[in-house]
Amino acid sequence: MKAFQDYYPDHLAHCYGCGRLNEHGHRIRTYWDGEESVTRFTPREYHIAVPGYVYGGLLASLIDCHSTASAAAAMYRSEMREMDTEPSFRFVTGSLQVRYLKATPLGPELLIRGRVREIDGRKVIIDSTVFVDGASTVRGEVIAIQMPEDFGA
Amino acid sequence: MKAFQDYYPDHLAHCYGCGRLNEHGHRIRTYWDGEESVTRFTPREYHIAVPGYVYGGLLASLIDCHSTASAAAAMYRSEMREMDTEPSFRFVTGSLQVRYLKATPLGPELLIRGRVREIDGRKVIIDSTVFVDGASTVRGEVIAIQMPEDFGA
Repeated sequence: MKAFQDYYPDHLAHCYGCGRLNEHGHRIRTYWDGEESVTRFTPREYHIAVPGYVYGGLLASLIDCHSTASAAAAMYRSEMREMDTEPSFRFVTGSLQVRYLKATPLGPELLIRGRVREIDGRKVIIDSTVFVDGASTVRGEVIAIQMPEDFGA
Repeated sequence: MKAFQDYYPDHLAHCYGCGRLNEHGHRIRTYWDGEESVTRFTPREYHIAVPGYVYGGLLASLIDCHSTASAAAAMYRSEMREMDTEPSFRFVTGSLQVRYLKATPLGPELLIRGRVREIDGRKVIIDSTVFVDGASTVRGEVIAIQMPEDFGA
């Protein structure tokens, strides 16, 4: 099953967080699950804030890339188009708000779930939550802005 | 000259963003420059969003760790204590807000500058800005919360 990121054109697939062509990066993969978007990611043993707990900057990064991918997918869906049709949508982050509700334990796979709050022209707002073992630990809001079609080309 | 992070006790010096003992991490170093705190950091060639531009998740991470370090230093200063005196202060991130003003070019050293907006009990609010070649590209606001003294011990 193809992830949202699998549809990014090659020249926009180098992002450290989500680019399938960045061999040093996180290479997250995001899918629809009904009305929500989902990403699963297991941090490395060195992605820590203090021993035993996940680094907040990684959690912010996961929310960021999960949300911009969700914004793109939501825009295709709003136009009732498949993600392999042209023109292709890619989003950049206008703003990122992250609230750390509690420490996120290191070890289990993290589940990030996103919901589309609003689509307004080239702007999409996504609410995303990080879960670990069923408990939410981080909440994020991303205002994603559609890239100009020639960006990075 | 010792950085703020050099004063973190060993058991709290493993953070991926700022821990001097995390050999995989960014190991940022923050200092006072008058009333402002400053961190300088040069991203790696793979820390990209699209080729030629710095990854937003890295920028969020730099703002996060720069700001929690600044919060700790500000708290010592408000008590007119040196950073090598007890009890030691460490902060976690309660919330992180990042606004991306424009794309941050990859290559030059980044300068992050922080200002203490407010100290209220165990909470410190830091405003931080990322500059590249003198231009601001990202603005962040971090609400940092003082860790319990026994956290991570």
